[in-house]
Amino acid sequence: MNGTMVWPATAAICEVGLRDGLQNEKKLLSVEEKLELLDSIVASGVKIIEIGSFVHPKAVPQMADTGELAKRMKRAEGVEYRVLVPNLKGLERAYDAGLTKAKLTVSVSESHCRANFNQTPLQMMEGFGPCVEFAAKNGMVISGALSSAWGCAWEGKIPTAQIEKITRAFLDLGITELSLSDATGMASPRHIYEMGSHLKKAFPEVSWVLHLHNTRGMALACAVAALQVGITTFDGAFAGFGGCNFIPGAAGNVSTEDLIHMLHEMDIDTGVDLAKAMETGRLAQRILGRAGGSYVLQAGRNCDLVAQKAQAQQNK
Amino acid sequence: MNGTMVWPATAAICEVGLRDGLQNEKKLLSVEEKLELLDSIVASGVKIIEIGSFVHPKAVPQMADTGELAKRMKRAEGVEYRVLVPNLKGLERAYDAGLTKAKLTVSVSESHCRANFNQTPLQMMEGFGPCVEFAAKNGMVISGALSSAWGCAWEGKIPTAQIEKITRAFLDLGITELSLSDATGMASPRHIYEMGSHLKKAFPEVSWVLHLHNTRGMALACAVAALQVGITTFDGAFAGFGGCNFIPGAAGNVSTEDLIHMLHEMDIDTGVDLAKAMETGRLAQRILGRAGGSYVLQAGRNCDLVAQKAQAQQNK
Repeated sequence: MNGTMVWPATAAICEVGLRDGLQNEKKLLSVEEKLELLDSIVASGVKIIEIGSFVHPKAVPQMADTGELAKRMKRAEGVEYRVLVPNLKGLERAYDAGLTKAKLTVSVSESHCRANFNQTPLQMMEGFGPCVEFAAKNGMVISGALSSAWGCAWEGKIPTAQIEKITRAFLDLGITELSLSDATGMASPRHIYEMGSHLKKAFPEVSWVLHLHNTRGMALACAVAALQVGITTFDGAFAGFGGCNFIPGAAGNVSTEDLIHMLHEMDIDTGVDLAKAMETGRLAQRILGRAGGSYVLQAGRNCDLVAQKAQAQQNK
Repeated sequence: MNGTMVWPATAAICEVGLRDGLQNEKKLLSVEEKLELLDSIVASGVKIIEIGSFVHPKAVPQMADTGELAKRMKRAEGVEYRVLVPNLKGLERAYDAGLTKAKLTVSVSESHCRANFNQTPLQMMEGFGPCVEFAAKNGMVISGALSSAWGCAWEGKIPTAQIEKITRAFLDLGITELSLSDATGMASPRHIYEMGSHLKKAFPEVSWVLHLHNTRGMALACAVAALQVGITTFDGAFAGFGGCNFIPGAAGNVSTEDLIHMLHEMDIDTGVDLAKAMETGRLAQRILGRAGGSYVLQAGRNCDLVAQKAQAQQNK
């Protein structure tokens, strides 16, 4: 019995390096450094950028200047500048900074929510209603994120019924763009394929985004499985920065460059100039003073190897 | 349009760390260290082990003691101990060391063969005839490897017709177990799926093995694509050691532990005890004095994270 794989013509990349890639970095970047990274991301052709979050500055000091960043950045035509917000207060700060797109996030894991917030996921989502009202009044667009969707340190695999419950709660709020987040890197390609197939059928009105971490090396394999169910929008972080709160030293978000390289090698257009995306990754590595987890930044693209060999032959 | 992914019940792992993982390491291991690794591999349940190669000792000093290793190793019931040989001389040395399985390798790339050996692949394969005769006379089994099958530093993508030509030449010699090797890590999942589908149909008599490197992070994604065409035998190297001759510092072979972890997470049985395979990987890292490229050795298995969290809750 053989499978039948499909290859969409295009896929979309959301660069989340400025938020998820940086949020746990000890070295605090200046707004100027973030602006330089942002310029570089825009120059590469990425059209969706998560520039930061409006969470408590003491909880995540790296994100404290998201408002200033938003106010000072140039806004390129056709680019979506998104922030993550946990609640109405965060959303109001996003609005004050002139932003029009915000992502509300909730962990689908009952145990995770209880342990961290002493609430159930649905209780936490009660606060999302006023956010949606505020957004509607002020011309903002809200998307949602289901964190721990692919596994949880407390619960392991999350039952499908639980994912459905949280999805329905988002839909009841009128939020139809939903990110399935795997910050602990527990998703396997089969899980992505099976859960993804089910969710695509059960909720045809949802625009799904996949947020993968490469904690156990499976992120690109999961992306390939997602393509098979028609999920074609992927978060990535420059140079593969980011990490997992629970696993010190673990690999971070899937590297934007590796993701684009693989998609392009499969003739799937992302609209991004990979060479320029690699410049963003190198810039991030210079600013942070260390290598991230990007293979392509380390080894070069397939075409680079062939070009180098041709050059070496010519020089003989 | 959606894909249909399939998940075989089982997959086979060939541990090639002792050969491909070590061959370019500067630190020369003692035979005792290799025996310790070999014992550990066998203890984990791996049934196919490439223990070394019989190439010129000056070309690959790390492999110079393969004969001694073969003579001194304990032979476990049901385990295949394989070596790589380039020619009849190597095969004779393998026979003298008491081995019964050898792999003959040729690059499918005309340019690569010309540049390194001033011969075409088919000219190189002329030397395989006497090897097959020798093997038949002496009760040895020969398998083949098509190196650069997924891309070549000189030529980039290798045309299907070229892969077919070399495959037919192997079949003409009576060699039906063939490894498709990607030492430069240029394979993409789509390429694996499309070429793999074609080859499986065109040569139903062949037992295919996939030899992946994680140079550009795509190895596990390629393995998933291979499963879809019914290729279920994979080389891996402990801790992801190994590399690419042309790319200093690049990632090595796909890590055996990462491969097994992913397969098990997808309910595909390998017959290997992952915890024990991880011990092999850690042993290799201790012997070589550095980390390899294994994610699972770095971050732990999915189940480890859940167990750690449960333990932490209990200790509260």
